[in-house]
Amino acid sequence: MARNSSEERERMEFDDEGITTNRDDGGGGRIMVEKVFKDTEVPPWTKQITIRSMVTSFLLSIIFNFIVCKLNLTTGVIPSLNVAAGLLGFAVVRGYTTLLERCGLLKQPFTRQENTVIQTCVVASSGVAFSSGTASYLLGMSPIVAGQGDGINTPINVKRLSLGWMIGFLFVVSFVGLFSIVPLRKMMILKYKLTYPSGTATAYLINSFHTPKGAKLAKKQVAVLFKSFCFSFVFAFFQWFYAASDGCGFSSFPTFGLQAYQHRFYFDFSSTYVGVGMICPYMVNISLLIGAVISWGIMWPLIEHKKGDWYSAELKDSSLHGIQGYRVFIAIAMMLGDGLFHVVYMLIKTASSLAALKSKKNQSSSSVIAADQSDSEIENYDEKRRTEFFLSDQIPVWIALLGYGILAAISIIVVPFIFHQLKWYHILVAYAIAPVLAFCNAYGCGLTDWSLASNYGKVAIIIFSSWVGLENGGVIAGLASCGVMMSIVSTASDLMQDFKTGYLTLASPRSMFFSQVFGTAMGCLMSPLIFWFFYKAYSVGDPDGSYPAPYGSLYRGIALLGVEGINSLPKNCVKLAVIFFCVAIALNMLSELLKCHETKYRIYRFVPSPMCMAIPFYLGGYFAIDMCVGSLILFLWQMKNKQNANDYAPAVASGLICGDSLWGIPAAILSLAGVKAPICMKFVPASQAQG
Amino acid sequence: MARNSSEERERMEFDDEGITTNRDDGGGGRIMVEKVFKDTEVPPWTKQITIRSMVTSFLLSIIFNFIVCKLNLTTGVIPSLNVAAGLLGFAVVRGYTTLLERCGLLKQPFTRQENTVIQTCVVASSGVAFSSGTASYLLGMSPIVAGQGDGINTPINVKRLSLGWMIGFLFVVSFVGLFSIVPLRKMMILKYKLTYPSGTATAYLINSFHTPKGAKLAKKQVAVLFKSFCFSFVFAFFQWFYAASDGCGFSSFPTFGLQAYQHRFYFDFSSTYVGVGMICPYMVNISLLIGAVISWGIMWPLIEHKKGDWYSAELKDSSLHGIQGYRVFIAIAMMLGDGLFHVVYMLIKTASSLAALKSKKNQSSSSVIAADQSDSEIENYDEKRRTEFFLSDQIPVWIALLGYGILAAISIIVVPFIFHQLKWYHILVAYAIAPVLAFCNAYGCGLTDWSLASNYGKVAIIIFSSWVGLENGGVIAGLASCGVMMSIVSTASDLMQDFKTGYLTLASPRSMFFSQVFGTAMGCLMSPLIFWFFYKAYSVGDPDGSYPAPYGSLYRGIALLGVEGINSLPKNCVKLAVIFFCVAIALNMLSELLKCHETKYRIYRFVPSPMCMAIPFYLGGYFAIDMCVGSLILFLWQMKNKQNANDYAPAVASGLICGDSLWGIPAAILSLAGVKAPICMKFVPASQAQG
Repeated sequence: MARNSSEERERMEFDDEGITTNRDDGGGGRIMVEKVFKDTEVPPWTKQITIRSMVTSFLLSIIFNFIVCKLNLTTGVIPSLNVAAGLLGFAVVRGYTTLLERCGLLKQPFTRQENTVIQTCVVASSGVAFSSGTASYLLGMSPIVAGQGDGINTPINVKRLSLGWMIGFLFVVSFVGLFSIVPLRKMMILKYKLTYPSGTATAYLINSFHTPKGAKLAKKQVAVLFKSFCFSFVFAFFQWFYAASDGCGFSSFPTFGLQAYQHRFYFDFSSTYVGVGMICPYMVNISLLIGAVISWGIMWPLIEHKKGDWYSAELKDSSLHGIQGYRVFIAIAMMLGDGLFHVVYMLIKTASSLAALKSKKNQSSSSVIAADQSDSEIENYDEKRRTEFFLSDQIPVWIALLGYGILAAISIIVVPFIFHQLKWYHILVAYAIAPVLAFCNAYGCGLTDWSLASNYGKVAIIIFSSWVGLENGGVIAGLASCGVMMSIVSTASDLMQDFKTGYLTLASPRSMFFSQVFGTAMGCLMSPLIFWFFYKAYSVGDPDGSYPAPYGSLYRGIALLGVEGINSLPKNCVKLAVIFFCVAIALNMLSELLKCHETKYRIYRFVPSPMCMAIPFYLGGYFAIDMCVGSLILFLWQMKNKQNANDYAPAVASGLICGDSLWGIPAAILSLAGVKAPICMKFVPASQAQG
Repeated sequence: MARNSSEERERMEFDDEGITTNRDDGGGGRIMVEKVFKDTEVPPWTKQITIRSMVTSFLLSIIFNFIVCKLNLTTGVIPSLNVAAGLLGFAVVRGYTTLLERCGLLKQPFTRQENTVIQTCVVASSGVAFSSGTASYLLGMSPIVAGQGDGINTPINVKRLSLGWMIGFLFVVSFVGLFSIVPLRKMMILKYKLTYPSGTATAYLINSFHTPKGAKLAKKQVAVLFKSFCFSFVFAFFQWFYAASDGCGFSSFPTFGLQAYQHRFYFDFSSTYVGVGMICPYMVNISLLIGAVISWGIMWPLIEHKKGDWYSAELKDSSLHGIQGYRVFIAIAMMLGDGLFHVVYMLIKTASSLAALKSKKNQSSSSVIAADQSDSEIENYDEKRRTEFFLSDQIPVWIALLGYGILAAISIIVVPFIFHQLKWYHILVAYAIAPVLAFCNAYGCGLTDWSLASNYGKVAIIIFSSWVGLENGGVIAGLASCGVMMSIVSTASDLMQDFKTGYLTLASPRSMFFSQVFGTAMGCLMSPLIFWFFYKAYSVGDPDGSYPAPYGSLYRGIALLGVEGINSLPKNCVKLAVIFFCVAIALNMLSELLKCHETKYRIYRFVPSPMCMAIPFYLGGYFAIDMCVGSLILFLWQMKNKQNANDYAPAVASGLICGDSLWGIPAAILSLAGVKAPICMKFVPASQAQG
């Protein structure tokens, strides 16, 4: 069962493995990859981090931060952009080196290790774009989101966003995670031989780029990506002309009629989400659609019939005590149920796996690493060479510990200045637990590719907001502690993924670490800046606008639960929430049970993901429809020519996402400059057609 | 130089030859085609006309009459539908026979001759849809078109349309042409060996279908046609929902902005005309676009600036004394200039070719048939076999003469009853000249594939309307005599084309003749019926509606010129008309001169066609843009894979045309039933967006 949302974005990358490992014949296959690269010299780590790779990383980071920010603010569904980052990084540097080579000026050839550095850096910086919570916990503090939930926006529970403190906060909390996990890298990569599917897939991709056959395919893929980029950019540009104001233009096209449109079922011609749908597994898109049908198709209309009975008819639309409350809290219930299941499941799995390792330590094979060991005889050469390079550049343990200590201390001092609702001891507690959670997350992610960072974050919200309490600004305290926790946990698992990539591409752990640091630093700067750009240009967080940023409201909703408990919810909302909480757990259990006991038809693949179902509860079905269109395109393409689809679909999808998202830059500039589109494409019922 | 409009639709088919003869390897090649079919028995003519072929013809005739009628009523631009008719005819009968064969019930195999009969029948009946003038001379008589040209709609110059007299009139005038030319078939086909490019291309197509390789390709083409048919039908269906009233929906999409839309430059999402553009030669589409730019882009805006000076500012928009007058009469001038050139050119060419034949009759080779004779030694077997079958079934000359005499007599008696503005001697004069013109047209068409039927019709309008005079109903008389003349001239050349096809597919002349008669009869019934369907469902002839039927106004304009002379036109209109008349002749002369004297770069291909330029003078550029989009698609496709494009583009285009046009049936039914689309997609300037 796959899931896909910013909440569990890393999970996505696992599903991509199917795509990327198809290219194995190009150089990523299990059999003696390193033999192919035998004669290629591996540069020392200082030469792996080159100026050109840093410049490329910087440029791509801007692009991907922009894309992730836009995705965050529209739906919060973020696909894996690894393939796009890999292709673009490769294309930029390869283009540059080819140019130099032709002029006879090339001094240093483009290596796999350099490519890995770029990839790591870009993924790290766009990872911050997600974990910085500009569209979730930080936005949830803002007056605009608070204003929707009438009642609890007392001054102490609202914090006006400003660029200064946001950047400061991110710098303080984002680096701690890197140091927390560094000492464990040898254990996780070499001893436990954890898979890290995303990291492995990325490594395969990069390895394949650097073989002749792979390079040729990559070149074609880049061409395809560029074409679909242009199409999607031009199409977005074209759409702009017809969107003079809200409710105008293609994004409010009542594709299935006006009534369906009112229930948010329409195809909004967003090439971004069509592309996202092409990257996401079928079941993710179908889960979204199922969620949309259940909520906006059935439940909300039924609840709206009870207006005046279940909730007061005089409330404004965005009030959490009205229909919006059902949307928010049922979605939260489902997400919490899903998150709880996975945290518990992962803890059990981690514990049992470690226990198994320990008990069979001295025997010839352990149950966990059996598969790897049987491979290892074949892979002997590969493994020897990889281990050799992985161990060559060391990061001493004392540096890691010292780093963690210093950064945590700074954090403990600085964070209470930014959020006076949090006291130093709150942060200290957070940093005491964090390394354990970081280890759990990194280990679990290595096993299943599933980072649960946002789930730990949600737990943190509940704990800290109820600890601090409503009067002392529990809402803000909860959201801020979510940031602290999420940053550590998420960067820790990211880093370990990158170590795995580095291991498989012979990149030095040291260069990996520094490029991760560099990427994180860029992310801490860029992410708030780009968010600010949107925040000023549009009414971000408005549930009916173009940038509803659903997680802003949802995270604040969780914090409200923490401080107020469940009493403030409208009638029957708790009942429904509990039902959906249980449904989420049940669905997950069903899926896991089927995974263990029914291997013939693999029915578990058809169990919808509760997390995915919950997102449209708040937003409606329009983006689910976009994504299903993407799925449909992919499906038909695969029917027609499977190899072709597997080779080029990720490139087409990436192009669609990049082009449409990048039109966002000129569009936001135009919006800031007060330039309005010239035409409004309106849709009115036939009865008003003459008006 | 190619041209394309219903005015010279037969010309189109010549340009298609490039497409259809690409399939020569499938069975239509010049070398011993008949050797391939040596062992295939040729059924007697009575078995060539089977029940299944007649039923198929009937069904396809309905479809194609519908399509032609819709095209006539929207722009009057009609592409060659031969490929579509050929493919569909083949698909239907082949499907039926395959089914029977599987059940063991097949008695008579599907032969080329049968296929030719279907093709002939369908083309004949859709030919009537064009020459019946429901969208040109008959519509020009109607009060709705007359009402636009204020002033001269005296009762005697207006005739209310009614189904009864229209069908009667068509039956009376449509068959005369068939008999007028039958006796000359041996001379034209066997002696002069005229090419008849369309007829030849059709024969190649049919021959290719009946070879194994050709049948396989045809099957794939049918599948492609079906897919594009479905797409275009569904898309048209989808569009319908958004077009609640005029000015709503995709057909008024201001693709290039609202200002361009006001000057009728926009892409109206009509898959029909995208398909038409794919079939038409590039230069036709570019000519249309050039015409649109010159007229709606430059001239009309300039003339509109003179409002109040050149013409009264108080006139209604549709008045022929205002801006509409410039549109109509400058377009007419250009068409007449073009027509005059071609009539004169064709007469000279026919005369000189006949003179050359005569003077060198007894010499070993004549200049005209030299090429064919050098071929003939190779083709000896083919030719012998074809001639043998062509001569086997005779149609006695006395029958032809008797038929012509009787039908002409009936016509002379009946037509004055229908149009009391015409006297018997008018018709008698028409029938006295007609056979000569019919011969000229059939001969010219054999040489160049260019039927000038509508040009002869226009000449007839001018002559007869000025003869009869305004007070005696000259407008109606002119338009009616146009019908008489056009029907004879056009069916004559059609029949000769079919004889050529029959000659090349070993179909009997007798079966050709009868299927032509059957097709014509169907056309005479269907064409008015289908027109009536549209006429009742929509406001046909309204210049701003969906069915402006441009030729209605244009033909009436010609008649007005005949009765009133040029004095009634607004200021400077005559001057401009004369200029464009001369430009049309000059362009044609330029093209012909280049064709003779500049063969290296073949620059003549880039001289725009005056006829094509004239159509958007009246209508605006929107359909030219559709067609250029079609050209662009074809161009890109050919760039990518030339063979693939040549094989499938005609099928795709036919599918687009058929699907979109056939949606017209349910749409018209809905319109008749008073069902309105639920949504109006409106485009308003940003300033009114909030309204």
